[in-house]
Amino acid sequence: MEKSCECPTRTPKDVSLQELRDRLAEFAEVRGWEQYHSPRNLLLALVGEVGELSEIFQWKGEVAKGLPNWTSDDKEHLEEELSDVLLYLIRLADVCGLDLGQAALTKIVKNARKYPISTTNQRATSNYN
Amino acid sequence: MEKSCECPTRTPKDVSLQELRDRLAEFAEVRGWEQYHSPRNLLLALVGEVGELSEIFQWKGEVAKGLPNWTSDDKEHLEEELSDVLLYLIRLADVCGLDLGQAALTKIVKNARKYPISTTNQRATSNYN
Amino acid sequence: MEKSCECPTRTPKDVSLQELRDRLAEFAEVRGWEQYHSPRNLLLALVGEVGELSEIFQWKGEVAKGLPNWTSDDKEHLEEELSDVLLYLIRLADVCGLDLGQAALTKIVKNARKYPISTTNQRATSNYN
Amino acid sequence: MEKSCECPTRTPKDVSLQELRDRLAEFAEVRGWEQYHSPRNLLLALVGEVGELSEIFQWKGEVAKGLPNWTSDDKEHLEEELSDVLLYLIRLADVCGLDLGQAALTKIVKNARKYPISTTNQRATSNYN
Repeated sequence: MEKSCECPTRTPKDVSLQELRDRLAEFAEVRGWEQYHSPRNLLLALVGEVGELSEIFQWKGEVAKGLPNWTSDDKEHLEEELSDVLLYLIRLADVCGLDLGQAALTKIVKNARKYPISTTNQRATSNYN
Repeated sequence: MEKSCECPTRTPKDVSLQELRDRLAEFAEVRGWEQYHSPRNLLLALVGEVGELSEIFQWKGEVAKGLPNWTSDDKEHLEEELSDVLLYLIRLADVCGLDLGQAALTKIVKNARKYPISTTNQRATSNYN
Repeated sequence: MEKSCECPTRTPKDVSLQELRDRLAEFAEVRGWEQYHSPRNLLLALVGEVGELSEIFQWKGEVAKGLPNWTSDDKEHLEEELSDVLLYLIRLADVCGLDLGQAALTKIVKNARKYPISTTNQRATSNYN
Repeated sequence: MEKSCECPTRTPKDVSLQELRDRLAEFAEVRGWEQYHSPRNLLLALVGEVGELSEIFQWKGEVAKGLPNWTSDDKEHLEEELSDVLLYLIRLADVCGLDLGQAALTKIVKNARKYPISTTNQRATSNYN
């Protein structure tokens, strides 16, 4: 359904944060779940999903980029846990009345100023925050 | 492209996950940070950001939707921490070779099947997962 | 077994961090699990347990001290998740070669200096760190 | 004060969970902080500390047991973050009215039954929970 497409070749859909936000809002509304979606409830649900995401990686030692040797089942499980974190994050931002997409763009610009290219590219450690 | 806009009034931009993914990939590449962006490094960085997000809410007791009475500084701080979680999540999915947007759409469809509308709307508890 | 006690009345045992540490070390050794207990593996396992702990509280709204109205099953579940976090934390400190009990005492002393009694008791927010 | 000891040689003190619990309870009481120590406030504070703990490990790749090559400052920082997690965990159990030490002993016994020695020692993955 989601993926029905008349195109002969698969073109990954460019999914927007607003689309996901609106779908989640409707999802909660039609099920009468809005009452449970307070900011701290959603935050704890997000932490729960981050825990499930961590469990996937917990006994593996280092994991190479691209996940070579992972089965398709393992990859699908990972996709689900990554999605759960994303969906609660989007929902949390929404019930807080914040525009997550705009905030993310703003943060990238801020990070770019904080870590100018010429002085940071030999850093031994790095982060965005 | 995303930002070109002839409109005189501000219309919130519809930010896509692919756009954010590509920006983050370029951000890391031009700084020579790709070497640090292994899956488990990024996962731990994500957990670190979830911790910072939690700190915002930790001593507040229940928080109402829409964050009434929060200062604009507090809201901006929250937007930054939400963004940090999002950006590491997108980057983690990317280095794992996974399409987070597609995965999220698929998960919403799966959740809709798991929680059909008629039987779930009186549930005392609920979740997406 | 653990609780066998010739005393006529139940006296809660004063459990030490060293006792738990030693039991966990033996637990891992006799099962051949030491190979999996690297610091980052244990850290991610800890994050996984914190997620399970959070799930217990996620849809509850505010929870009163002492957990009135919780069933004994719910309390037992909570005890198990609190224990899982504790056990991984103790094991993590152990494989890092650190004395968690001493570190905790030292931290309490440091916190007491950081938050002297007279000036902090009207604070609107508080923390130990 | 904490460490005053007439012994000529340093003997690590066997710190108990009850001792830490009592100190934390008094610490909060004399500062008037009990009002902030609701279960979910403490849980989010715990998540915040787990985030800080994760940040220590986030860009390091795999870390060897015993932390060879870590400076004493880095080890001390780690001890502080491990302690912060422990202290909030103990405090959370206390305000919930639960005996964390007993719960941990009970959980170890349960784990020992769940993972009997003979059948588990060749497992490729393992956990306590």
